[in-house]
Amino acid sequence: MVTYKKINIIEMHPIGVIHSPFKSKSETPIQPVFSSSIGEVEVFSSYLDGLIDLDGFSHIILIYYFNNTENFQLKVKPFLDNKVHGLFSTRHPNRPNPIGISIVEIIQISGNLITVKGIDVIDLTPLLDIKPYIPDFDVRTSTRTGWYKNRNRNYPEIFE
Amino acid sequence: MVTYKKINIIEMHPIGVIHSPFKSKSETPIQPVFSSSIGEVEVFSSYLDGLIDLDGFSHIILIYYFNNTENFQLKVKPFLDNKVHGLFSTRHPNRPNPIGISIVEIIQISGNLITVKGIDVIDLTPLLDIKPYIPDFDVRTSTRTGWYKNRNRNYPEIFE
Repeated sequence: MVTYKKINIIEMHPIGVIHSPFKSKSETPIQPVFSSSIGEVEVFSSYLDGLIDLDGFSHIILIYYFNNTENFQLKVKPFLDNKVHGLFSTRHPNRPNPIGISIVEIIQISGNLITVKGIDVIDLTPLLDIKPYIPDFDVRTSTRTGWYKNRNRNYPEIFE
Repeated sequence: MVTYKKINIIEMHPIGVIHSPFKSKSETPIQPVFSSSIGEVEVFSSYLDGLIDLDGFSHIILIYYFNNTENFQLKVKPFLDNKVHGLFSTRHPNRPNPIGISIVEIIQISGNLITVKGIDVIDLTPLLDIKPYIPDFDVRTSTRTGWYKNRNRNYPEIFE
């Protein structure tokens, strides 16, 4: 049986670091689909065996810690719109738990270094997890997308 | 400019709890696509304003803490195959940072309670984040899926 104990603090530890060409927020794309940039995902060598068979996948989900964020606000203007929305209906990086997810394409894996295309994080972002992208699990096409669909499309595709 | 300081421990705090009909691992589906079950995502009331406009989206990404896991192994047999693979090429819950992601469909939002379809987590799972599912960001269709494509398809779709 599952038992529940109230958890107040969860400790996580970086398993690697993401190297990217973006040295400041102002030059960082807001999503991988707006980026064709190459990055390098360095997985700490003690986790090397975890990468076995990853080269069979074309895309991976990077899960990482937004470490250049500020305090979150529950009502925010997302980067792609000029209206205020609830934080959890946006992908804004300032969140109670600043966890980011990015789907990127594997270009090459060499030892503990994964070269990827479509990187959208600031250089030296702490890596928390890697999962294989599997369309059977991860694709939903029949969707509604609220404010995003009706947004102001003149907005820039990088951080303001 | 971005500054980097080596981070050893990252602290996270649950922002809510996921209620599901699954009281043990053995009855829990391994992915939302294998589940038509209804669950209830309880967001702690102090985060209520973060849910504004979320009802415009049909699907959300739940990010949560696998709190019924064991120590991870870097080489594992995933639930859907009978061969050993590197942990990061699987979606196995025993991970260095046991972060889970599930895409679920919103049925209804009432105050701080989000009723969702396609739940695949054990009852009382700590919630870390909610993001809107946006196909422009989250769908990749031209993919390779390595061992998953070639897996033994007779495997059960719940935890063993």
